[in-house]
Amino acid sequence: MKVKITEVGLRDGLQNEKFVLSTDVRLELAKRLAGAGVRRLELGAFVSPKWVPQMAGSADLVKAAVGAAEFRDVQISALVPNERGLDEALQVRAPRIAIFASATESFSLKNINCSIEESFTRYAAVVKRARRQKLSVRGYLSMCFGCAFEGEVKESVVIRLAARLIEMGCDEVSIGDTIGVADPKQVRRLGAKLLRELGPRRTTMHFHDTRGTALANILASLDLGITSFDSSIAGLGGCPYAPSATGNVATEDVVYMLERMGLKTDLNLDALIETNRWLQGKMKRELPSKVGRAGRAHPLGVVRSSDPS
Amino acid sequence: MKVKITEVGLRDGLQNEKFVLSTDVRLELAKRLAGAGVRRLELGAFVSPKWVPQMAGSADLVKAAVGAAEFRDVQISALVPNERGLDEALQVRAPRIAIFASATESFSLKNINCSIEESFTRYAAVVKRARRQKLSVRGYLSMCFGCAFEGEVKESVVIRLAARLIEMGCDEVSIGDTIGVADPKQVRRLGAKLLRELGPRRTTMHFHDTRGTALANILASLDLGITSFDSSIAGLGGCPYAPSATGNVATEDVVYMLERMGLKTDLNLDALIETNRWLQGKMKRELPSKVGRAGRAHPLGVVRSSDPS
Repeated sequence: MKVKITEVGLRDGLQNEKFVLSTDVRLELAKRLAGAGVRRLELGAFVSPKWVPQMAGSADLVKAAVGAAEFRDVQISALVPNERGLDEALQVRAPRIAIFASATESFSLKNINCSIEESFTRYAAVVKRARRQKLSVRGYLSMCFGCAFEGEVKESVVIRLAARLIEMGCDEVSIGDTIGVADPKQVRRLGAKLLRELGPRRTTMHFHDTRGTALANILASLDLGITSFDSSIAGLGGCPYAPSATGNVATEDVVYMLERMGLKTDLNLDALIETNRWLQGKMKRELPSKVGRAGRAHPLGVVRSSDPS
Repeated sequence: MKVKITEVGLRDGLQNEKFVLSTDVRLELAKRLAGAGVRRLELGAFVSPKWVPQMAGSADLVKAAVGAAEFRDVQISALVPNERGLDEALQVRAPRIAIFASATESFSLKNINCSIEESFTRYAAVVKRARRQKLSVRGYLSMCFGCAFEGEVKESVVIRLAARLIEMGCDEVSIGDTIGVADPKQVRRLGAKLLRELGPRRTTMHFHDTRGTALANILASLDLGITSFDSSIAGLGGCPYAPSATGNVATEDVVYMLERMGLKTDLNLDALIETNRWLQGKMKRELPSKVGRAGRAHPLGVVRSSDPS
């Protein structure tokens, strides 16, 4: 079985880090990730650098990457909040955009300053124009397993909004555990409903490891037949609602578990660990990935060719 | 379903920490853990303080705890490497001892300075005498999922040695992923064999979170019907073979996941988080537990009374 990994460290990760990386360093990081086998890469967000300084220069990044030899096999995407963002995406020839909706009203208002309905109206126009211009679109749906403001989130709402993102023209929905509260039982329940509604090719799980449950939640998803996940190199990112907490699940940790289970990804764990080491120097802090810290366990291989018994 | 947690932070955790806690602070920690609902508590090790200074004063600790009101409902145990350790245990009226064997020759030699066979001969005499004195015995088997020196470990060897520990008089075997390399698929394969050989009441899983997979491995175990796990408050501990890596899975993280899945433990998550905060001050470093850092997600409850849909 092959598992698809979408690397979101350069967008979801970095936008939640205090430390701001230059576009040069981000391009270098993107190249290293592509070299490590990343095939789905979110490069940045076309948002105002006044509000999100970490994403400044995203258009330059996408422009530099699109068509460059290093990114030949990489599906590049950028987050686009509105029509103006789409204009930028079209200008720099981004092949894929992402839109970002919320499963709860409170987070929608807090994060994108409008109600869920207003955001869907706005996105519908963006997606329509993007698709007309042959761009593909990924939809994010955040706070699907619990909301920092509203607490528990109704599964029926998540299912309905996810289905609307597909109807709108998204080819997949990334179901976000934005504050990292999900447990495997909840994942199995919601995941089964999502699979019935969207099918496996349109369902991606986006777990944060804020409370350590991300790999267990990925296992629960795999058991259901979900094979597409978002992750962030080195565990870049944080949780704005829990200051010292960690954020996105680390790509290295996901790849370690999957490979040792005998599941294939396109990614090279050694190259990811090397990228982690390089990145810690650039971020000037110890990053949360556990495999990044511990490394492989020599003399243990990661992919086992036979079942020892 | 009720899940049994054995708290091993005061032994397996602290013995792998550089910072040495006084017996007074360790007793205070033990009382806080008992107050948080810990019912199975490994208090220390009767080993030479020359070799393991972190465990110095373990006899005083056990003596202070046995019979004290705070520990009325707590099953206290101490690690005992040999007959001399058992003498100490008997002197301070420890009700339960633990012995520590290895699934690989290299680690046995490195860790306890004898072959596996020699260790089993020695332990057989210790356990026989302990049982005659009405002490109960837990057996640890380390390096069951991979060895820092030998790589992959034969499952047939793990099963055979675990069975021998039970035959010898242990009432349970704690199956250790000592270097934190296990993946859920491996856990399912070995766990199913262990259940067939030992039964669920004698099987405890002891995961380290060195590579982030511990909660996924606990989930895989639960799916098999294994309901007994070791954990360490705040994730105390480390990995001697990966200097900056974390060690035992954190009790708070385990309890968070279990409770949110609707599984009962005797433990109180808020009291554990409070103990974590207190302990960070004593250890003078940030401890690895993710739930310890992030806390509960207010306004989300941990145990959900109904399925939101």
